[in-house]
Amino acid sequence: MKYVKDFNWKKGMSVKSFVEELGGIGFQAIELKAASEIIEKMKTSGSKIYLSFTSNMVTSGLRGFFAQVINLGMADIIVTTAGAIEEDIMKSFGEKFDIVSFNADDIALHQRGENRVGNLVIRNESYMKFEDWMTEVLEKLYTKQKHWPVSELMKEIGLLLKDENSILFQAAKKDVPIFCPGITDGAVGFHLFMFQQKHPDFIVDVVKDFKNIMFATSHDDTKGFIALGGSISKHHAVFAGLLSGGFEYAVYMTTAHRSSGSMSGASTNEAKSWGKIKDDSDAATIIGDVSITFPLAMISALENLAEKGIIK
Amino acid sequence: MKYVKDFNWKKGMSVKSFVEELGGIGFQAIELKAASEIIEKMKTSGSKIYLSFTSNMVTSGLRGFFAQVINLGMADIIVTTAGAIEEDIMKSFGEKFDIVSFNADDIALHQRGENRVGNLVIRNESYMKFEDWMTEVLEKLYTKQKHWPVSELMKEIGLLLKDENSILFQAAKKDVPIFCPGITDGAVGFHLFMFQQKHPDFIVDVVKDFKNIMFATSHDDTKGFIALGGSISKHHAVFAGLLSGGFEYAVYMTTAHRSSGSMSGASTNEAKSWGKIKDDSDAATIIGDVSITFPLAMISALENLAEKGIIK
Amino acid sequence: MKYVKDFNWKKGMSVKSFVEELGGIGFQAIELKAASEIIEKMKTSGSKIYLSFTSNMVTSGLRGFFAQVINLGMADIIVTTAGAIEEDIMKSFGEKFDIVSFNADDIALHQRGENRVGNLVIRNESYMKFEDWMTEVLEKLYTKQKHWPVSELMKEIGLLLKDENSILFQAAKKDVPIFCPGITDGAVGFHLFMFQQKHPDFIVDVVKDFKNIMFATSHDDTKGFIALGGSISKHHAVFAGLLSGGFEYAVYMTTAHRSSGSMSGASTNEAKSWGKIKDDSDAATIIGDVSITFPLAMISALENLAEKGIIK
Amino acid sequence: MKYVKDFNWKKGMSVKSFVEELGGIGFQAIELKAASEIIEKMKTSGSKIYLSFTSNMVTSGLRGFFAQVINLGMADIIVTTAGAIEEDIMKSFGEKFDIVSFNADDIALHQRGENRVGNLVIRNESYMKFEDWMTEVLEKLYTKQKHWPVSELMKEIGLLLKDENSILFQAAKKDVPIFCPGITDGAVGFHLFMFQQKHPDFIVDVVKDFKNIMFATSHDDTKGFIALGGSISKHHAVFAGLLSGGFEYAVYMTTAHRSSGSMSGASTNEAKSWGKIKDDSDAATIIGDVSITFPLAMISALENLAEKGIIK
Repeated sequence: MKYVKDFNWKKGMSVKSFVEELGGIGFQAIELKAASEIIEKMKTSGSKIYLSFTSNMVTSGLRGFFAQVINLGMADIIVTTAGAIEEDIMKSFGEKFDIVSFNADDIALHQRGENRVGNLVIRNESYMKFEDWMTEVLEKLYTKQKHWPVSELMKEIGLLLKDENSILFQAAKKDVPIFCPGITDGAVGFHLFMFQQKHPDFIVDVVKDFKNIMFATSHDDTKGFIALGGSISKHHAVFAGLLSGGFEYAVYMTTAHRSSGSMSGASTNEAKSWGKIKDDSDAATIIGDVSITFPLAMISALENLAEKGIIK
Repeated sequence: MKYVKDFNWKKGMSVKSFVEELGGIGFQAIELKAASEIIEKMKTSGSKIYLSFTSNMVTSGLRGFFAQVINLGMADIIVTTAGAIEEDIMKSFGEKFDIVSFNADDIALHQRGENRVGNLVIRNESYMKFEDWMTEVLEKLYTKQKHWPVSELMKEIGLLLKDENSILFQAAKKDVPIFCPGITDGAVGFHLFMFQQKHPDFIVDVVKDFKNIMFATSHDDTKGFIALGGSISKHHAVFAGLLSGGFEYAVYMTTAHRSSGSMSGASTNEAKSWGKIKDDSDAATIIGDVSITFPLAMISALENLAEKGIIK
Repeated sequence: MKYVKDFNWKKGMSVKSFVEELGGIGFQAIELKAASEIIEKMKTSGSKIYLSFTSNMVTSGLRGFFAQVINLGMADIIVTTAGAIEEDIMKSFGEKFDIVSFNADDIALHQRGENRVGNLVIRNESYMKFEDWMTEVLEKLYTKQKHWPVSELMKEIGLLLKDENSILFQAAKKDVPIFCPGITDGAVGFHLFMFQQKHPDFIVDVVKDFKNIMFATSHDDTKGFIALGGSISKHHAVFAGLLSGGFEYAVYMTTAHRSSGSMSGASTNEAKSWGKIKDDSDAATIIGDVSITFPLAMISALENLAEKGIIK
Repeated sequence: MKYVKDFNWKKGMSVKSFVEELGGIGFQAIELKAASEIIEKMKTSGSKIYLSFTSNMVTSGLRGFFAQVINLGMADIIVTTAGAIEEDIMKSFGEKFDIVSFNADDIALHQRGENRVGNLVIRNESYMKFEDWMTEVLEKLYTKQKHWPVSELMKEIGLLLKDENSILFQAAKKDVPIFCPGITDGAVGFHLFMFQQKHPDFIVDVVKDFKNIMFATSHDDTKGFIALGGSISKHHAVFAGLLSGGFEYAVYMTTAHRSSGSMSGASTNEAKSWGKIKDDSDAATIIGDVSITFPLAMISALENLAEKGIIK
């Protein structure tokens, strides 16, 4: 039996020992500690790790952390959304995203060409630079091949980026596939459409990419899943895992609750009814903002794995 | 200036007069009444109406209501997810979805082949029947054409369904396009993949469909948007509207909050910074479960529109 | 087994038949229908009904509905907070509460003497009139008695109000006690303090009122509980019910979730571990804004009870 | 202008540098960093600090941290609920609270005499020991005085506890008043009632305690407020601050949102319309589970204050 333990601050406290203590505090602190342990087990067990996240997280400074996590070998399959791809690329050129307020004057922002995402903004110029770059890159890739599954397109793009904090760059370097089943849902969709107008035989093949994600792991692999937020990225990863026999380890981090039957609020328990997560899996669902909960849980796992020499 | 008004029940109260009264109660009741008025204005102004919803809503009994809403001319463009397509088709064969509990024993459900979505379940048999039907239909459609934009595929399927409560059927009948930018994200993705294995020249063209949604309305049209829940369906519809000049009317109904910067929690205000919704638009964001809030707001609008002879 | 049923609008639909249909829709709609049935059973079973609500609901137009619900015999014990008492009284003088926006400019409101509660405001003048009235009333009551349990004070005040839409008035008329364990938490606390300064032997006896709520029902009574929102009002009512043997029927309506271990998010299941709600009780927890969910569930119950001649 | 900064883990990272980095990540991470800075300013500016929390937080391991925070001089006025008092006392005798699951079987727990609070439980025995202790202490205190404002009762009790991790003990030692405007709302209410049955002249004077909290600080003091969760404790503290001229600094940490107009979801902006928080105050609202967000923000402030020699 585990008991609640009075928490006390000690001067110079590390994140690692803080997360250790969370396990005795209660409520979501306990779930976060459990999540951290499960992430650690994913790695020590040699599981293939699926990591899904949404575009707002790449708008945020988690982007550099995702890149680092990939570089450290903590993610083997990435599933995300179109916006995440766009913003990772923009940041690779050095585009800066401002910090504003959740209560910002949206009409004033609009007039200044600033597009709000919570308390952050992306400027119109960043989209314009992205358009120029993307158009050029598509021309180059088209000369190579006319028919592209999304993940192969992502890899080619990643190789062009040369930014250590870029998700696409680190994934390409480490041969981690990035799946984006809703690739047309964003500015990138518009650019692909414009390109196809000029080159009608240019095809983005999402069905072919389904094959790629299906065979990204096998039934024999033990598998882990870290789902950050909801959306098509969470569902696509968990569905791919199901087709591959289900996950042995799963951590869901979200702000959504189960009450509306949504995918973003679906718990690891609900996933067991589908066989997405195995009946006897190690699983935890943490309710909270991923901008705080994910780095906490992941850092603590990284510290332990580094200590054991499993990552360096 | 509007004031809070003491609410009183009157025997035999209609939904219409109930929603009328909500406008004087407070908090989300006020927002719901505003949403209902905006929906009414969308129609009386002759706007093109975009309606987006997620798959869990089609798991629910809202499915028949969506079909009715389309049939009544209250939606001109539909954006949804793969699961919604699958479940609309399953129900068209008469598949039944059980009502269970949010606290159901998920391991027992798994053993019985019942897959939980909140307090509802979909049985494995329903997926198996869907597979058989889908495979046959794809063969038929392939003989017609080898290269399919998603919305054109949806229309062909809709014409085969013959169920008044089917979203795809009503949309096909009324020539309302259904967009599904993440079509491979679900069982349907697997069936498309299997089909492509047999017929490598079979292509689902999502880029082409981007063109279709872009030209579904023009800058000259006044446009309205009803977003139910979040996900790729909400973003894709609002992004298409942006490319077409932005919405004059918008109603967002969701359980998500703005605090995490997610798309599902993004408010109509945030959308103004992007120009997705016009600065001087009529817009409302309602926080609550769509299974309750959407029919309330829509019924009240329908009653008023029927009274004016705008719908029948 | 119950199944999901396609929902269809029928012209002129009543709230009663709408709530009936909610039972086949899914997610919170199902829970709301269950809540409505449980409320109906509370009354048909002759249970003593505890009703708790928070002050923001009395700021809203639910205030008149609470008064009506009491008048119809649907509440036998009321538990609420100081703000609810204050605002019920202010409205009895005809004070009006404006409807504004959740995004109102709070500094401008402050300068105009308008105090915001979500999308509603209460003006400083309303507080000033309340002060004058309260001071006078306390003088009158002091001549009668120097030592007051809160619920007895509430009854005396209620008898002075003569407003059919007043909670205190209807409760006094129907001899329904109003408990307010945190009576000093608000403007009324300040007025009581000022009065005690002048009359040091004036005592508000909260301990005595604990006896009153404990003996408000007996172990032999069957008991039902309708908890709207969280706060001390929910806890006090459920704790009183526990001391009296636990509830046979319970409906919790709240926007809070279980994830933080808070009282406002505590479910009817959690209450069973305490014996607050009996193991074999009829219970439902509905997540949603009470300004919409409570009138829906209650109206449907009232319609059915009126049809059976149980209320009139 | 502040920009989003790519976050990177560095081996051995301290909580202090982690919170520093949160300020560049986005969403609630940014708000948490702001909160931490405001807490630091409260102390460096010599403000009187009001701290409010709810009973579930004392069920959790935050209890020891609250005691430490008081001991370090980071709280000058405490406002809380009856349950918090009870559980602080139980833990002072060494009672242990088990860690279970949010999905625990509540009927089984009930049969074992275990009362669930989220993923924690309190055993019936702990309540029984509390009853014995409380009864004895009340006899002792009654011999001293018959008429007790709550905060004076709390101080006497605190002096008896001798547990460094006890909130009441540390508060008594540091002469920090603990206000509990809803003192009868819990087991302690029952014990006070039983005691009053035996000693009818025993009075708990909540009105007198209103005076105590009103004069706990003056208009001349600069004041800060840390509100954890909602409930009567948050409202009472903020209302007392209003009567004393309003707060210069405020940090709200909660899981509740503004959408229902509740006190728990009320933002620091809303508080400005009331003058509870000054127009030009430093204020932040953080949405998230306090079991994680509060220690993070507070530890970071403590580290900085210790470095400057302001606390030791």
